[in-house]
Amino acid sequence: MKATIINCTLKPSPGESNTEALLKVFAEALESHDVECELIRAVDLDLKPGVETDMGDGDEWPMVHQKLLNSEILVIGTPTWLGRPSSVASRVLERMDAMLSETNDDERPVAYNRVAGVVVTGNEDGAHHCIYELCGQLGDIGYAIPPQAFTYWNKGPGPGDEYLDTEEGHDWSASTARAAAQNLVAVAQALAAKPLGPPPE
Amino acid sequence: MKATIINCTLKPSPGESNTEALLKVFAEALESHDVECELIRAVDLDLKPGVETDMGDGDEWPMVHQKLLNSEILVIGTPTWLGRPSSVASRVLERMDAMLSETNDDERPVAYNRVAGVVVTGNEDGAHHCIYELCGQLGDIGYAIPPQAFTYWNKGPGPGDEYLDTEEGHDWSASTARAAAQNLVAVAQALAAKPLGPPPE
Amino acid sequence: MKATIINCTLKPSPGESNTEALLKVFAEALESHDVECELIRAVDLDLKPGVETDMGDGDEWPMVHQKLLNSEILVIGTPTWLGRPSSVASRVLERMDAMLSETNDDERPVAYNRVAGVVVTGNEDGAHHCIYELCGQLGDIGYAIPPQAFTYWNKGPGPGDEYLDTEEGHDWSASTARAAAQNLVAVAQALAAKPLGPPPE
Amino acid sequence: MKATIINCTLKPSPGESNTEALLKVFAEALESHDVECELIRAVDLDLKPGVETDMGDGDEWPMVHQKLLNSEILVIGTPTWLGRPSSVASRVLERMDAMLSETNDDERPVAYNRVAGVVVTGNEDGAHHCIYELCGQLGDIGYAIPPQAFTYWNKGPGPGDEYLDTEEGHDWSASTARAAAQNLVAVAQALAAKPLGPPPE
Repeated sequence: MKATIINCTLKPSPGESNTEALLKVFAEALESHDVECELIRAVDLDLKPGVETDMGDGDEWPMVHQKLLNSEILVIGTPTWLGRPSSVASRVLERMDAMLSETNDDERPVAYNRVAGVVVTGNEDGAHHCIYELCGQLGDIGYAIPPQAFTYWNKGPGPGDEYLDTEEGHDWSASTARAAAQNLVAVAQALAAKPLGPPPE
Repeated sequence: MKATIINCTLKPSPGESNTEALLKVFAEALESHDVECELIRAVDLDLKPGVETDMGDGDEWPMVHQKLLNSEILVIGTPTWLGRPSSVASRVLERMDAMLSETNDDERPVAYNRVAGVVVTGNEDGAHHCIYELCGQLGDIGYAIPPQAFTYWNKGPGPGDEYLDTEEGHDWSASTARAAAQNLVAVAQALAAKPLGPPPE
Repeated sequence: MKATIINCTLKPSPGESNTEALLKVFAEALESHDVECELIRAVDLDLKPGVETDMGDGDEWPMVHQKLLNSEILVIGTPTWLGRPSSVASRVLERMDAMLSETNDDERPVAYNRVAGVVVTGNEDGAHHCIYELCGQLGDIGYAIPPQAFTYWNKGPGPGDEYLDTEEGHDWSASTARAAAQNLVAVAQALAAKPLGPPPE
Repeated sequence: MKATIINCTLKPSPGESNTEALLKVFAEALESHDVECELIRAVDLDLKPGVETDMGDGDEWPMVHQKLLNSEILVIGTPTWLGRPSSVASRVLERMDAMLSETNDDERPVAYNRVAGVVVTGNEDGAHHCIYELCGQLGDIGYAIPPQAFTYWNKGPGPGDEYLDTEEGHDWSASTARAAAQNLVAVAQALAAKPLGPPPE
């Protein structure tokens, strides 16, 4: 089983990313279930604005799109800015919009029979909203959302430490990641064993 | 297989409910897959404020809670007010919060291995947000959210007709309901065949 | 100048309310600007479901509605459940929906030339979203929303202490409250000095 | 009085933009109150990811930032994708985050004593949520949000026509734009006459 993990930090490589640090905890949890994980830092790629799978002219989305089609599991990781997912996460979801009209052999959107989860870090409150927004969009596109398929880290109230500034709360974020990873794998396996068939007439 | 369908209209019975009209279309779609459906109008019940399963003193939530435990499928239907789910829907979700700490024999939250979807009607824009909010909360509680597990009806821009005022757009809402019903049933069946096991150590 | 402060806790009086504790800090800040504050605990009242100002038969909303018409400033305080405002807050906003079609002598919605702010407490992440939702709805109804017209308190990650369980972070919440109170008063005064006139033809 | 109007379409110039079409209606309404309007298409600019005012190396945000400082009024226009503002709108708001720590002579965030509004177009439901999100973020940054400071256009249910595909509903969107424009101007004037002073000690 394969997982694509997209880090939607605003910081290009090799900048230190808090979101990547927590995504690595998540990836380890997936790997403990024999899931092969690939981590992409979206901001390093030239993802053109638009809602087609290939926006031409140097667009690097088609490569990511191909990875999504090869993966049963998708994890979106995002920092929180002003209580919302990053513009990079918005761009990624926007590009996935085109998957709504791409269908597989069963005439189903290509995201069907795949599962998705979300990881959020922030220096302030906002994780729940990011999780709801991203899971809502992923469900809209055709992913199944397993129960409690997320983890997050932030502290409050008001702006403060980033994830990598402290060890506080890391245990909760890690154990929540392990539960989420297990749920992603379990639902992916259930759908692999008994996939959704063709749509109603 | 059983479905509990909760109509979160603000109008007590026997008042005409637009949400109920679209929920009945959804129930028919579920019934075509041999799902036994029960429709509850939450505003007819005395659902006390609070986050315990039994708030005592005439609280009628425990009866709904029991139905949820007997159902593999949950559908929440809500009207849209100021772009958001009704206060009755908020109350229902709030009462479900207690299910987070109730576990089954596998030490899993009782909502695990169940699926949920959402139906929204409105006289104005707001359905996507209601769907994302409610699906986000249901996933938080432990329900799996199948792909595209929703339908909705509204027209725009600005306030205008209710669902029962016109036939316009009913076809889209009904065919979207049929697809969503099929997805709810298929994911519920996949989870019944291969349920999520006990949580990680 | 008068302020109505509505506590949307789920706990009836005399139950201890974390939201009330932070609202009192906010009220003190308003009082330091000579604003007369009245604090209402909405769950103590029988606020019927519906979107008319008077839903008849024991409905206690008309009394609250009258207080809103007598106040230049409105503050909504809510706890956070599953990342969202309480069902009591939803009910209050829903009842305010009727104010959209009530007009003053200038043919303006009655909320015009009034200002509103929000206070949120929680045992987990969610405050920003509650603030955005409630301010959005209040703006829709006709209130002006001053800059940074909010304060909140929570800690993360994951569920944990309530406001009254600790002193941590209280300073930030209080100084943010003082800034918000000052902004509410200043914008209310600016609108009193130069009110919005009649609508365009 | 000056207004900066930022079109957050995904389509580079000279591509036809539905959002621009409705923004022009909004600009006309502002101009009828003697507001000088400048319309920017953000996707034409190289707005680097990050949360500093100048991200260096070809970053074109500083020019937009300067326009914001010269304008009493800001209008953000966005299309709707998957029920949310565009990634370009997310990027714009993210770049404005830096304004939180820039202060004017009164030691106030530079956005204070300015007002903001929102315009949304879409081929499907989602406008209310975009309005609430963007107004919430703008308020967080320090803008005052006048009553009903928005207009939108979409039709439902399900995906369908774009704004420029039909005349349906244009009247509602235009009259709502005129009311919003008037409110932006009126609150900007009230704040110019009686600006918010220095923050509390």
